[in-house]
Amino acid sequence: MIHFECDYTEGAHESILRRLTQTNLCQTVGYGEDEYCASAREKILSACQAPRAQVHFLVGGTQANATVIASILRPHQGVLCADTGHINVHETGAIEATGHKALPLPGVNGKITARQVEDAVRGHYADGTHEHIVQPAMVYISHPTEGGSLYSLSELTALSDTCRALSIPLFVDGARLGYGLAAGDVTLPDLARLCDVFYIGGTKCGALFGEAVVIVNPALQKDFRYHIKQRGGMLAKGRLLGLQFDTLFTDNLYLRINENAVRQAMRIRDAFADRGISMLYESPTNQQFPVLTHAQREKLAQQFIFSFWQKVDDTHDAVRFCTSWATTEENLQVLLSAIESL
Amino acid sequence: MIHFECDYTEGAHESILRRLTQTNLCQTVGYGEDEYCASAREKILSACQAPRAQVHFLVGGTQANATVIASILRPHQGVLCADTGHINVHETGAIEATGHKALPLPGVNGKITARQVEDAVRGHYADGTHEHIVQPAMVYISHPTEGGSLYSLSELTALSDTCRALSIPLFVDGARLGYGLAAGDVTLPDLARLCDVFYIGGTKCGALFGEAVVIVNPALQKDFRYHIKQRGGMLAKGRLLGLQFDTLFTDNLYLRINENAVRQAMRIRDAFADRGISMLYESPTNQQFPVLTHAQREKLAQQFIFSFWQKVDDTHDAVRFCTSWATTEENLQVLLSAIESL
Amino acid sequence: MIHFECDYTEGAHESILRRLTQTNLCQTVGYGEDEYCASAREKILSACQAPRAQVHFLVGGTQANATVIASILRPHQGVLCADTGHINVHETGAIEATGHKALPLPGVNGKITARQVEDAVRGHYADGTHEHIVQPAMVYISHPTEGGSLYSLSELTALSDTCRALSIPLFVDGARLGYGLAAGDVTLPDLARLCDVFYIGGTKCGALFGEAVVIVNPALQKDFRYHIKQRGGMLAKGRLLGLQFDTLFTDNLYLRINENAVRQAMRIRDAFADRGISMLYESPTNQQFPVLTHAQREKLAQQFIFSFWQKVDDTHDAVRFCTSWATTEENLQVLLSAIESL
Amino acid sequence: MIHFECDYTEGAHESILRRLTQTNLCQTVGYGEDEYCASAREKILSACQAPRAQVHFLVGGTQANATVIASILRPHQGVLCADTGHINVHETGAIEATGHKALPLPGVNGKITARQVEDAVRGHYADGTHEHIVQPAMVYISHPTEGGSLYSLSELTALSDTCRALSIPLFVDGARLGYGLAAGDVTLPDLARLCDVFYIGGTKCGALFGEAVVIVNPALQKDFRYHIKQRGGMLAKGRLLGLQFDTLFTDNLYLRINENAVRQAMRIRDAFADRGISMLYESPTNQQFPVLTHAQREKLAQQFIFSFWQKVDDTHDAVRFCTSWATTEENLQVLLSAIESL
Repeated sequence: MIHFECDYTEGAHESILRRLTQTNLCQTVGYGEDEYCASAREKILSACQAPRAQVHFLVGGTQANATVIASILRPHQGVLCADTGHINVHETGAIEATGHKALPLPGVNGKITARQVEDAVRGHYADGTHEHIVQPAMVYISHPTEGGSLYSLSELTALSDTCRALSIPLFVDGARLGYGLAAGDVTLPDLARLCDVFYIGGTKCGALFGEAVVIVNPALQKDFRYHIKQRGGMLAKGRLLGLQFDTLFTDNLYLRINENAVRQAMRIRDAFADRGISMLYESPTNQQFPVLTHAQREKLAQQFIFSFWQKVDDTHDAVRFCTSWATTEENLQVLLSAIESL
Repeated sequence: MIHFECDYTEGAHESILRRLTQTNLCQTVGYGEDEYCASAREKILSACQAPRAQVHFLVGGTQANATVIASILRPHQGVLCADTGHINVHETGAIEATGHKALPLPGVNGKITARQVEDAVRGHYADGTHEHIVQPAMVYISHPTEGGSLYSLSELTALSDTCRALSIPLFVDGARLGYGLAAGDVTLPDLARLCDVFYIGGTKCGALFGEAVVIVNPALQKDFRYHIKQRGGMLAKGRLLGLQFDTLFTDNLYLRINENAVRQAMRIRDAFADRGISMLYESPTNQQFPVLTHAQREKLAQQFIFSFWQKVDDTHDAVRFCTSWATTEENLQVLLSAIESL
Repeated sequence: MIHFECDYTEGAHESILRRLTQTNLCQTVGYGEDEYCASAREKILSACQAPRAQVHFLVGGTQANATVIASILRPHQGVLCADTGHINVHETGAIEATGHKALPLPGVNGKITARQVEDAVRGHYADGTHEHIVQPAMVYISHPTEGGSLYSLSELTALSDTCRALSIPLFVDGARLGYGLAAGDVTLPDLARLCDVFYIGGTKCGALFGEAVVIVNPALQKDFRYHIKQRGGMLAKGRLLGLQFDTLFTDNLYLRINENAVRQAMRIRDAFADRGISMLYESPTNQQFPVLTHAQREKLAQQFIFSFWQKVDDTHDAVRFCTSWATTEENLQVLLSAIESL
Repeated sequence: MIHFECDYTEGAHESILRRLTQTNLCQTVGYGEDEYCASAREKILSACQAPRAQVHFLVGGTQANATVIASILRPHQGVLCADTGHINVHETGAIEATGHKALPLPGVNGKITARQVEDAVRGHYADGTHEHIVQPAMVYISHPTEGGSLYSLSELTALSDTCRALSIPLFVDGARLGYGLAAGDVTLPDLARLCDVFYIGGTKCGALFGEAVVIVNPALQKDFRYHIKQRGGMLAKGRLLGLQFDTLFTDNLYLRINENAVRQAMRIRDAFADRGISMLYESPTNQQFPVLTHAQREKLAQQFIFSFWQKVDDTHDAVRFCTSWATTEENLQVLLSAIESL
């Protein structure tokens, strides 16, 4: 069986394992204050053209989301997000566990607009009983979204302008950012310029695990390490995270390996299109969501593991196929042939 | 100006103030362990025909909701409710502040159905990634609902049967229960038979303040007083609550005064209907939501204070008029005349 | 049996009940935005000589403590307090339930010193692993303390100076402030000048219930009403609180009734001293803690209800006798005679 | 400079890195449901002789502590621990952030006794106002303790008996369990027999990172994976944890490498003793706490990195030296020589 169900079925890019092995017995201080972390921070800040930003390495995405959001909001405040946003639907209430309500807005293709944010915030204060209602005080988006779509630079700019006009921070969940950078027109310097906080996903983009949180807004930087510790994210051997990101940000590795995965995903998309199979979402990134008949689904399930996504109608289901930095040309060919013969 | 904007514009039924004054210098122990509380408990249990239930007196509705829900759920669990449910929209995230997600279901006329609950719970477990999703583990309904509607006995029975089949508790917010008992076919013994926990609203139904929480399910009774204390609801002079409920549950006062308010509300509803003015919600209880033109709204606003509820279209707004145990026949007549002359 | 076990065995000062009765059917808006609250606020600000402070009325002390503290601290921060502080030992973890650690310092006679605060804060930052430790970010004291003692003006000034030098807010729990004002040299204007937030206790000092939170520091004022609502403290009929404090702050009633209670307590203290009975704590306020032999305790228990406080040795227990605004000369005489005859 | 400041200055045992590299491109399912995790679970259950226990792999110790404790306690409950317990002093309030109070008992050599637990619990219920006090409902100990000491089998048995008699769970933090198993008389089957939950530390005992939580008590097993996800501990590539523990529990590797570290630590202890240098704590495990003069400390600091622990008096400080599975004989010899020449 060949796995295409997600982008974390393998370990890490081989150069990461190689460096872990080479440095294994070097002694360093703990908790992310070692030289590998320092080097990785410098490379990330340079790639972001944001010398005054802070970079922190956390273990996973849910942890990064909860830690960032809880570090920013006061108790009566909530975070606006798409109804399909990861924090709203797929983190077992991690945000609520820190005391805050996720405030979902109806997304289109997984995205929310500057206008929706503005209406939500202005509408809140227009309500005479606003003190009885959670105060919208932050915006969370994921880029790429959970359904693979991307914010364009102009959409992101509009969101950023609106958030600044409303004085609420914009936070971008970049769990799959590598694929987003490869497929869209938003760059790392754009993110650093337009967001208050964002993170660069490692787990799904070439690392064993790890997310690099970039706090651009100086007002949100204070004491962040306390929050990491409190939320269980401070790795004793922080060097493991530093070394991985240092490797990914050397010689452009992060972009190169994720670009390849996006090219592979486009070939899968085209193969389904050639068979007249439509997609649930329009996705330019590494996740593709074909809508299959039961017969097609069963046929593919004989050779491949992929994810059930949702029922579409009585005869069709949407499923998910993912490529990743680790997808081999060989496995891709087997899949393309199978799609062709549907 | 005459107030009709809510059902808490006056103090309390005069017999309550009279007894507070009479007993003012009697000495009692604190924290709800006095004789007035004991007597009130006994009367409530008797009215509910639930001798083994527990009765606790809390100060207000938001407090009662948060205290009950947090006392029952484990951290990964959430509470199903209507999207318009008070806990979801009008308590500044009090539930989330205890760590739990409100899980809204689309309501019809403010109500949710047994079928929706069943689908939500079965759907949760059918999802292969259910551990990544908040577990639906409790049902919250309000009776009357926030829009004045009522569950019929058969609807409540169906909800109760479903909850028991799914092994999740059913909790009824009765902030306006007095008006519900007066207008519908659900009785206190029905509530005690069909719910796990419910509360009998005092604040909006004749008391100065206070809600009587009735915990019917013995599995949910343990240690509830700790939770009251932790959530700031344990009044030093608990006697104030006991004495008020003791008065309301003497000689059927609670039902009598709220029945009168419902009769008055029906006369307001009929007066609007006579003028061809429709209602936003179908409400058999003390809250009425006429849809007014701007001219009508302005006209009434010259004499009355009432609540803006929501914009209906460019020329119409829904507003709220409430009666209460304190509404005088005199004020009612002024309102009815004004409606007539619209 | 005559109750001396606490200062909340009766209702409220008669003038409060009289005004509640007189205004009972007046219609007002809800949630503390009525004219009684406005008037009470004005009188309190005037008594405090703090025109720019905010005044909020909450129902009880535990609620006031948790609401104030949670509104100020960020998640990684804790609150310094005496080990005997109410928030540390007697509120069922209400502070921890909002996510914050109480950071107890060893008290002397229930009090902590400026030096202890300074050492705790400076020691925190001196520790190389301070990010692994809760950050001390606020000071909580009670005045009078739980054992009846008082901070002198110079002690309070030193604490205030230290807190300002360290940039951490000073919060004073004044659940029994009336008795403190009557017995010590700290005045309301002193509190307003030296603290960031404090509250004026009503429940134990003449009201049915209620605490007036005074937020002096403008940086801590923003959005406080959201917090009140979220923590279940926003009374629908907020007028009940406003009217009570308006009454207590009319014609100096608050000070007068509490002064009398302190004079009575001093007579009790002297009576015990005359019998050679020592006190557990040195208390100049309305709580007295005589150390009794078992025989003495049993003798007094035949006529009076008082609180067991703690075991002192195998033959002695400390107990608590409280006076209050409601203690009658008649009951006091009975107690004095009984003490005399020990 | 040679590092002895902690037991996480290197990566992982070489056989772990070798297997990570070998399996790197194998495809597996995510979230700990892969075959490496299954195999590791089986080996751990077998080593514990606890076939019905559950094993879960978490990333770090603070996370394991908060996740376990929050999954067990109800909101009004707290966890008894030594005052020096890691959860009480060194996790930035992670437990409080989940809403629970750590209830410290004065430890002796970092340990608490069955008698202390019994007194705390019985004392709680004996207090007439116990509902105002956090309910002690769980016991947390660390083994080895933060100061390197160990519970003897008889001490642990007494704690276990007491906890069972009181119906409260016993949880053992085994962040350094490998060193404890090597040095004491408590075995894995003993832990599985006597505790309700414990964890086997990986991070400090040979792994890159990771802790294996063993839930022995079936009543505490339900839904634990939801809690892991909510607290940010569910690694997408859970296989990384499974594979590491599978390696450590193959051919007794876990015990072997930690035994060696303990032998090395004993040689350091003896070397200090030979120089007449006393220890702050009596520690039979891999952490040693010599009390040095300033001159001695400075001398050693020229060659070695070690931790400042606490000031002892004006002329002496206690410091910490740790060995680990990674300490080389060569580095040890350099240290022993340096101690000899003090």
